[in-house]
Amino acid sequence: MDQNQAMVKMVFDRWNALIKNFSTSLDALTDEQLQHEIAPGRNRGIYLLGHLIAVHDDLTRLLDFGDKLYPELVKPFLESPDKIIAEIPSAKELRAAWSTMNETLNQNFDKMQTNDWFQKHTAVSDEDFAKEPHRNKLNIMLTRGSHLAYHHGQFILIK
Amino acid sequence: MDQNQAMVKMVFDRWNALIKNFSTSLDALTDEQLQHEIAPGRNRGIYLLGHLIAVHDDLTRLLDFGDKLYPELVKPFLESPDKIIAEIPSAKELRAAWSTMNETLNQNFDKMQTNDWFQKHTAVSDEDFAKEPHRNKLNIMLTRGSHLAYHHGQFILIK
Repeated sequence: MDQNQAMVKMVFDRWNALIKNFSTSLDALTDEQLQHEIAPGRNRGIYLLGHLIAVHDDLTRLLDFGDKLYPELVKPFLESPDKIIAEIPSAKELRAAWSTMNETLNQNFDKMQTNDWFQKHTAVSDEDFAKEPHRNKLNIMLTRGSHLAYHHGQFILIK
Repeated sequence: MDQNQAMVKMVFDRWNALIKNFSTSLDALTDEQLQHEIAPGRNRGIYLLGHLIAVHDDLTRLLDFGDKLYPELVKPFLESPDKIIAEIPSAKELRAAWSTMNETLNQNFDKMQTNDWFQKHTAVSDEDFAKEPHRNKLNIMLTRGSHLAYHHGQFILIK
């Protein structure tokens, strides 16, 4: 294992653990509990779930994996705070989307070679990337990983 | 910038942003608010602050930076859940420790060369490291970063 392979493994060990931990917390909640707020007056569990699916779906764009699976989640879960959009997908639908999202991402991750992770993501220009080579695809996984950890810390508060 | 330098920059850009974000949230709370729970029946803000200082102080051991600054925080904030140990340091003392902790860590980080980050941390044996080169010092920063993000997600809920 060379240092680049080790680096990709480090980032993905973390990512996979965070996804697994969130999934375990999700499986432990009923659909009714997902309607509860993480704390009084704060986001509901179902909103955090939809938000994470929408953010991870955006990885398909940033990592050049093709079209989004759930563009309809952008408005309610990225562009709007919780409780603004009255009609959102059901807990059952979002659970299925979380699962499909992870499977689809994993299929795409499996096709990547080590060196692909050190290439630029789609939201940085060639010019900027030449000066800032850390703005690569692996960095996207790093930032989305800490975003997931942040919301998982909140998600486990649901009773 | 070679790929190892880019990798260290990626991890430290994330770490520094997470520290800065937590510090901003901390500065926005009064000492009295730090005594509040993040959600009913959950950890208090002051416990999370002490817990993060104790976990980050353990970096000095894992990264071979020398002795811990605050070994007295292990018992109340690592080995015990919140509200078990009656006497804990004051908010004022913990704010000062958070600040000193970050300054001390930064001084030690500054002395590290890029390649030092890819050497084994102190909790892995030479034998295991030969098989698992991803168990390096940089990986410690990655896992502690997502730990910090997890608790920051909770910390911002304090009212």
